[in-house]
Amino acid sequence: MPSEPSKDLLAIANPHPDRDYEVRCETPEFTCVCPMTGQPDFATVTVTYVPDRSIVELKSLKLYLWSFRNEGAFHEDVTNRIRDDLVAALSPRRLHVETDWLVRGGIHTVVQVSYPS
Amino acid sequence: MPSEPSKDLLAIANPHPDRDYEVRCETPEFTCVCPMTGQPDFATVTVTYVPDRSIVELKSLKLYLWSFRNEGAFHEDVTNRIRDDLVAALSPRRLHVETDWLVRGGIHTVVQVSYPS
Amino acid sequence: MPSEPSKDLLAIANPHPDRDYEVRCETPEFTCVCPMTGQPDFATVTVTYVPDRSIVELKSLKLYLWSFRNEGAFHEDVTNRIRDDLVAALSPRRLHVETDWLVRGGIHTVVQVSYPS
Amino acid sequence: MPSEPSKDLLAIANPHPDRDYEVRCETPEFTCVCPMTGQPDFATVTVTYVPDRSIVELKSLKLYLWSFRNEGAFHEDVTNRIRDDLVAALSPRRLHVETDWLVRGGIHTVVQVSYPS
Amino acid sequence: MPSEPSKDLLAIANPHPDRDYEVRCETPEFTCVCPMTGQPDFATVTVTYVPDRSIVELKSLKLYLWSFRNEGAFHEDVTNRIRDDLVAALSPRRLHVETDWLVRGGIHTVVQVSYPS
Amino acid sequence: MPSEPSKDLLAIANPHPDRDYEVRCETPEFTCVCPMTGQPDFATVTVTYVPDRSIVELKSLKLYLWSFRNEGAFHEDVTNRIRDDLVAALSPRRLHVETDWLVRGGIHTVVQVSYPS
Amino acid sequence: MPSEPSKDLLAIANPHPDRDYEVRCETPEFTCVCPMTGQPDFATVTVTYVPDRSIVELKSLKLYLWSFRNEGAFHEDVTNRIRDDLVAALSPRRLHVETDWLVRGGIHTVVQVSYPS
Amino acid sequence: MPSEPSKDLLAIANPHPDRDYEVRCETPEFTCVCPMTGQPDFATVTVTYVPDRSIVELKSLKLYLWSFRNEGAFHEDVTNRIRDDLVAALSPRRLHVETDWLVRGGIHTVVQVSYPS
Amino acid sequence: MPSEPSKDLLAIANPHPDRDYEVRCETPEFTCVCPMTGQPDFATVTVTYVPDRSIVELKSLKLYLWSFRNEGAFHEDVTNRIRDDLVAALSPRRLHVETDWLVRGGIHTVVQVSYPS
Amino acid sequence: MPSEPSKDLLAIANPHPDRDYEVRCETPEFTCVCPMTGQPDFATVTVTYVPDRSIVELKSLKLYLWSFRNEGAFHEDVTNRIRDDLVAALSPRRLHVETDWLVRGGIHTVVQVSYPS
Repeated sequence: MPSEPSKDLLAIANPHPDRDYEVRCETPEFTCVCPMTGQPDFATVTVTYVPDRSIVELKSLKLYLWSFRNEGAFHEDVTNRIRDDLVAALSPRRLHVETDWLVRGGIHTVVQVSYPS
Repeated sequence: MPSEPSKDLLAIANPHPDRDYEVRCETPEFTCVCPMTGQPDFATVTVTYVPDRSIVELKSLKLYLWSFRNEGAFHEDVTNRIRDDLVAALSPRRLHVETDWLVRGGIHTVVQVSYPS
Repeated sequence: MPSEPSKDLLAIANPHPDRDYEVRCETPEFTCVCPMTGQPDFATVTVTYVPDRSIVELKSLKLYLWSFRNEGAFHEDVTNRIRDDLVAALSPRRLHVETDWLVRGGIHTVVQVSYPS
Repeated sequence: MPSEPSKDLLAIANPHPDRDYEVRCETPEFTCVCPMTGQPDFATVTVTYVPDRSIVELKSLKLYLWSFRNEGAFHEDVTNRIRDDLVAALSPRRLHVETDWLVRGGIHTVVQVSYPS
Repeated sequence: MPSEPSKDLLAIANPHPDRDYEVRCETPEFTCVCPMTGQPDFATVTVTYVPDRSIVELKSLKLYLWSFRNEGAFHEDVTNRIRDDLVAALSPRRLHVETDWLVRGGIHTVVQVSYPS
Repeated sequence: MPSEPSKDLLAIANPHPDRDYEVRCETPEFTCVCPMTGQPDFATVTVTYVPDRSIVELKSLKLYLWSFRNEGAFHEDVTNRIRDDLVAALSPRRLHVETDWLVRGGIHTVVQVSYPS
Repeated sequence: MPSEPSKDLLAIANPHPDRDYEVRCETPEFTCVCPMTGQPDFATVTVTYVPDRSIVELKSLKLYLWSFRNEGAFHEDVTNRIRDDLVAALSPRRLHVETDWLVRGGIHTVVQVSYPS
Repeated sequence: MPSEPSKDLLAIANPHPDRDYEVRCETPEFTCVCPMTGQPDFATVTVTYVPDRSIVELKSLKLYLWSFRNEGAFHEDVTNRIRDDLVAALSPRRLHVETDWLVRGGIHTVVQVSYPS
Repeated sequence: MPSEPSKDLLAIANPHPDRDYEVRCETPEFTCVCPMTGQPDFATVTVTYVPDRSIVELKSLKLYLWSFRNEGAFHEDVTNRIRDDLVAALSPRRLHVETDWLVRGGIHTVVQVSYPS
Repeated sequence: MPSEPSKDLLAIANPHPDRDYEVRCETPEFTCVCPMTGQPDFATVTVTYVPDRSIVELKSLKLYLWSFRNEGAFHEDVTNRIRDDLVAALSPRRLHVETDWLVRGGIHTVVQVSYPS
């Protein structure tokens, strides 16, 4: 039975909280809907973070990203929302989100945001 | 107002039906749903054909491919269905469809089918 | 009915003005005319900025870049004019423009300018 | 003083008409206008031919391709027109034209045509 | 609960047996053991076939390839065994197996075998 | 007779301890087992360090990495354990470990950790 | 003392004239002068041949190609002249010459000729 | 009538002297003569600078680089001479010259120099 | 104790002589000495063959290629000698040898020979 | 008559000692012998330096690197010895040596050392 896409990000205990280290998760499987035209948009999403007490469980990250499939979202907004949701779930020491979008109107767009700013 | 995704492929008159020539249309923006797990799949679709009396209108091709977004489809089946729908709409002299799927279970799959076989 | 190319850049409200984040827009679809020879020049234009209260609407950016199609412009000048027009329209916190020109006389030229300088 | 764009292709004498050999000319500097939307399209054009009594003078080929800059032209049509004009000007033994277009509506299109068909 | 690695390849009904088409499955996740040194070897395995009445179920293919993890196998032998097992399970119209091995003793080896020979 | 995989890292005398220099060892031949699913995972491991009195003997490093073949290990944990084992064996001046994992659930993960943190 | 550039191609005895085999020599170090503008042109030259009784001595090939440095030569002509000179010097079973020229007027040109035609 | 190669670099007025911006000019069309062997050498030359009151006119830069065609010049010396000539002609705020030479004696050499040092 | 380089190629029994299949072995670790200058030459050697009753043992192939390290050998000759030695040792159904040599005098040379011719 | 490989590095006068500039020499043609197994090792060597009063003569650098051909040398040791020999011969302002070794035991090793440390 398939998992249902959900915005719940599962935080699990960081096995090595005594040090700073970096985790980078990248997927080309992100799609949402343009709020102006209703047409699908596609992006590669890269999340890079230094965990504090929690690391993200990969399957919940997959489902979280999947949950945008039918949502309308501007490029700039969805990037910041992913950042805010991950910060809320993980309370990381540092975090960076990059979304790299397929061409629209001849223009290739990339949005990047960090925490803390 | 956005166009609605539709399976109707628009055939327009081939401006040079007196000769064989080849048209290739490629898009990384194809997604459908795995019929076994309900989870999204992603592919790059390439359609190559030699038109007879008709060529495909590009916007209708985009909407046609978009129409699979919420359908369950096995890799092998969807590739053959795209081939059959295009053959029905265009009656081309020759046609080839390739679908190149993002990794599932560590395996990268590519399906190719031609018309006539 | 097609949009008319225009120098009007549409600024829309930044959905997350509480933080610094970066937007990068890149297009290989820029062409203008050499003011010395009257012949067309071609460039890839990349605009990178940190928005303050406004982000640029992508379609207006496309039309803005299109508006140079019949204008004479030196490489160095057009790059600086794009920077100045974007700064005027968006009042960004930071901005960077790069133009990467196709070969002329065996020489490949790239011009880069930032705001603030 | 700049040359004016012109559809006149200059044929010059083939210095080695006693044998078959191949000339390939490729340029990313082709742009025309979409007849449906009025917006600019961009393509890389590749012409490959086996000359008979004539070879094409490169500057006239550049001006010929430049002459499409303000014309409306479907992808499939313009490719065939370039083929026909070159066949008329050069009477080559064999000729092939490929146009490789920048993405429109998420779709990357390539058109190829040969002479004789 | 994890699946157990197994040599059982699951054949499922080909949805389009009325035509020839090609399926290619590629994975860099193959490892077995050198029968001479007992040390692990690593390969990328590519299976390409034209199905007749059956296509291979992807998860069973993954488990099948996994089942070699603790087996000793020469490069040439394992490639032929994969071919024979797939032919027995699928009775395909045509099949090709390629194994591309990571460097041993400074030499990069690739083995390819087809069915029918 | 094959060597047995072992966690014993052999430290040999640094021939030039009077200066800082950097050694980088990279291998795509790392595999372990997912502790949640029991299925194999694959990674490229890169160890970069500035030696103090010891450098690592390459064959013992190979056997050390091989010793994870049948162990269950989370991506984040195994990366930190490799770092801790190398620090214990070599007492380097500086050390960095990167593990770059093949795609799982559509997500490509890279973990990096340094010593000192 | 430097060698002087010379059109003399040195043929040496083929050590294995009992069989067909192929030799390919490629160099990006070819330059000549445009006969219309007097300006330098640059090309990569690739010579591929099946020797009969002679193979070309590499240093004489280098000097031969160097000898064009101050000569005016059209792309199509120089390619055929290199072919004719090599055929005269080596009497090969088969030969192919390709010249791949740096961009002029936005156009990248490649000329290919074979022997026998 | 062709231009004559000349060491005269034409400085034209910087259209935006009120700010720092960067111009990069790169060409693979540089050749000179080895002063020890008399044989031709080939390099890609990249000039990057921040203009003050002047920018370099591209055609004069092309002719300037062409003027080395028959001069003997060591790699290290010619790179520094290009830097000195450009600094004298343009009085730039900053300048960098890189020459990347084709292989001689199995060695690939790159020379870089900046102004101010 | 190290193996001694030797021209003895070890043929082992082909485990699947009932069919044609292909083995390709490629190494960048080939060096010999130029018989004219006494200086070292370097090549990547690729051997591709369809075995009959024998396959080559990889370690003996490594030692065989190593045995050329101090021999003088022209590019064309050494390629044919490798072919002849492998044909004598393996009696393959088909065999192909390619040697791809690092640049000498600005020229990159590739030699290819097949069996049967 | 060929040059003999020699450890004597020829220092010639720096033509521009009044400024800092960088020279980088890179060659894939380095081979020595593993002191443990007696088998050949292969590396790409890159030397980067800022000259003071001397620059290295390229032919002597080639012969110097050639002189390691029959010497036993650990990766870490040979890299430091090249650095020490070059520092002794050139007294450079700064120098960096990188050796990038072909795979041994599945591991790709790179060693880097600078002067001053």
